[in-house]
Amino acid sequence: MNPSNHALLTDLYQLTMAQAYLEQGMEEPAVFEFFIRRLPPHRNFLMAAGLPQAVDYLSTLRFTSDDITWLAQTGRFSPTLLRYLEGLCFSGSVEAMAEGTIFFPNEPILRIVAPLPQAQLIETRIMNLLNFQTMIASKAARSVLIAESKPLIDFGLRRAHGAEAGLYAARASYLAGFAGTATVLAGRAFAIPIFGTMAHSFVQAHKDESESFAHFAQAQPDNVVLLIDTYDTEAAAHKVVALAPSLLAKAIPVKGVRLDSGDLAEHARNVRKILDEGGLPHATILASGNLDEYRLRELIQSHAPIDSFAVGTAMTTSADAPSLDCAYKLQEYAGRPCRKRSEGKATWPGRKQIYRERTADGQWAYDLLTTSTDGQEGQGLLQPVMRDGQLIAPLPSLTDSRAHAADQLAQFPVSLRAIEPAAPYEVRISDTLKAMTESVDRRAQ
Amino acid sequence: MNPSNHALLTDLYQLTMAQAYLEQGMEEPAVFEFFIRRLPPHRNFLMAAGLPQAVDYLSTLRFTSDDITWLAQTGRFSPTLLRYLEGLCFSGSVEAMAEGTIFFPNEPILRIVAPLPQAQLIETRIMNLLNFQTMIASKAARSVLIAESKPLIDFGLRRAHGAEAGLYAARASYLAGFAGTATVLAGRAFAIPIFGTMAHSFVQAHKDESESFAHFAQAQPDNVVLLIDTYDTEAAAHKVVALAPSLLAKAIPVKGVRLDSGDLAEHARNVRKILDEGGLPHATILASGNLDEYRLRELIQSHAPIDSFAVGTAMTTSADAPSLDCAYKLQEYAGRPCRKRSEGKATWPGRKQIYRERTADGQWAYDLLTTSTDGQEGQGLLQPVMRDGQLIAPLPSLTDSRAHAADQLAQFPVSLRAIEPAAPYEVRISDTLKAMTESVDRRAQ
Repeated sequence: MNPSNHALLTDLYQLTMAQAYLEQGMEEPAVFEFFIRRLPPHRNFLMAAGLPQAVDYLSTLRFTSDDITWLAQTGRFSPTLLRYLEGLCFSGSVEAMAEGTIFFPNEPILRIVAPLPQAQLIETRIMNLLNFQTMIASKAARSVLIAESKPLIDFGLRRAHGAEAGLYAARASYLAGFAGTATVLAGRAFAIPIFGTMAHSFVQAHKDESESFAHFAQAQPDNVVLLIDTYDTEAAAHKVVALAPSLLAKAIPVKGVRLDSGDLAEHARNVRKILDEGGLPHATILASGNLDEYRLRELIQSHAPIDSFAVGTAMTTSADAPSLDCAYKLQEYAGRPCRKRSEGKATWPGRKQIYRERTADGQWAYDLLTTSTDGQEGQGLLQPVMRDGQLIAPLPSLTDSRAHAADQLAQFPVSLRAIEPAAPYEVRISDTLKAMTESVDRRAQ
Repeated sequence: MNPSNHALLTDLYQLTMAQAYLEQGMEEPAVFEFFIRRLPPHRNFLMAAGLPQAVDYLSTLRFTSDDITWLAQTGRFSPTLLRYLEGLCFSGSVEAMAEGTIFFPNEPILRIVAPLPQAQLIETRIMNLLNFQTMIASKAARSVLIAESKPLIDFGLRRAHGAEAGLYAARASYLAGFAGTATVLAGRAFAIPIFGTMAHSFVQAHKDESESFAHFAQAQPDNVVLLIDTYDTEAAAHKVVALAPSLLAKAIPVKGVRLDSGDLAEHARNVRKILDEGGLPHATILASGNLDEYRLRELIQSHAPIDSFAVGTAMTTSADAPSLDCAYKLQEYAGRPCRKRSEGKATWPGRKQIYRERTADGQWAYDLLTTSTDGQEGQGLLQPVMRDGQLIAPLPSLTDSRAHAADQLAQFPVSLRAIEPAAPYEVRISDTLKAMTESVDRRAQ
């Protein structure tokens, strides 16, 4: 069963609520916004990601006749609901932040306006899609900031949480500035550059380590990056040096080596020396093995002669913050702004807009969170994406979104670049929004 | 693009290594084993899960002609490799632990024996599948042990890492003893019981909270579980009591209420009193909202009158250990045992078997990790599953595997039931296995 584009990939209550809405004729426009309530402990900012997948989900959402048959035989649903689902297409509008935009708590990155049963039904998968890629882009951006210009490669598929997590982690990390991924399908699906070397098993399957290097070089003459830590790293570096002339005689250059265990900085220094003295000054060193932004910083601050890094599990699982405190909340129904007041989970009501205010020299000063009709100067961060269920214009390519993400990281306040917690960036609530909130609360009492 | 059953969902190096193996004629049988190197800090045991999905992947693995065309146009691969991939079917054998079995570090839960290029190619997805469900079952089992007989429901799809993570987390938590899930597709795909109540947005979309309760009850007369924390929990409980007689007049019983925020124990006590005094002693209380095994223990130890719990993000993401230190390692090639000796990542060589030794009164005493040919008494934990690429016998149903998991949790040492770290369960390495390791190392030198 392919879960990725399945209408039943939702919570049961979305269906039962839709049934109740239909019975009561509650099909007026509902406004839902997706936002993050607060930053995880180890984040100073978030990067919006996942919009094309959310749009694709909305554009293709259909209940098949098999789905309807299965739902019917559960005995839980009314014929009215089943007929409604049978004909369902998303007919609403979407406003959203551009992918790659840096944002902060309480700022919606996506707004849905659609008849209430529709807007409700899509909640679970919209959250699932936006939460994951936003979480990964936000995590990956931290390594990108630390690594500066050194290329980073996603090696995380094996410990990603399933197929889609691996695929979308490759996409979100590339958006945030990674150079590419080892995941072949991400190369095919998103035209992301793919990278790969060799595994320990390749070395072990040979009786002799040098022989394994020679075989790999013959098979991949343009991509000779040799894994040298299976038995003894420095001894293997000497084997690479010894092998290199015979390969060069066949016009096969040794492009580099990979280190995957032990003290990476120390091994890198030893190996660099062995390669340099052995006539391989252009052979690069790629490091991998339980890397994250903290380990990257140590290695870079110690001036370890490492040219590029592969980052796997810590990034793909967002290991230090494997979820975001995200919400998709009803902010208006039938023209009436509303909000949730549950303890610790209260929200700002109504349709909102965000303006990024700048200082005279162009620095980001603060964000203004206000109502969508507040008419501030400048362009708000939420822009129209879909209307009447249709895309208004093609979304930017991943390449363009990646450039936008890089711009954002280049512009944003220096204090937020730290991987330790910084003073929070200010999100100012406008008087208009405060006044609306008070009026919603007064009405409720 | 459906990533779930896609042959390109693999690391690039699997393809480049396969090419090198083919060029060298290295197609002898290779033996790979999947195991966990060490327990995460917050686990005393692991529960094997994901075998049916791994078997399904192996049984259906095919490169489509589209895949081959795409691979060819990358210019990276030889015609030999492309022809090989075009005809590829898994033709090897699989031995594995039964799903739901409790296991410990260094114990393989799955062994693949297949021609080297095949056994190598499948590495990434096999790891991806087994790592995730094993991690989730191991996490969910902790809540199951704490909750004792109180039902637990998976509410985690929205913050799961994508579609497959949500679907398989529902499956793995049900295997471990959860009562069911909110994920509708998991109900359809795996016949797992599905549960649902209502969302805050349902209440907010109405002008009046009582009216929202009445509407929901009419739409779902057999499943009236009302969410009462949108505005004021105790006030809403009084509204439920006030509404109940008119619903009962229509033969609609109030089944229960859900609490989702604030001090759950205190609210549960207040609400229990209101319901009891209001003539609803049979209405149950379901609690949700950032629950994990630690919060469950607090609530249960405080004797909060909560009847069932919904557990979401913390379980679905295995938040305190969002990955396992898993490995899929070459242990033998062409009849020659081998092992990796990388620093901190050395492995035991050869084909292995595990025997669970018991005390006279049937308690688990220790596990013996030995060679597969050691001929110990009793049945080893690894049993044949596939031969020549075919299932030997149908796998147990999910219901049967769930019963096996419950048996394991009922039998296993009391010390391991704690959610805090306990003294490690002993995995004894047999003299036979140690001798083989020494001989492998001697040969390497």
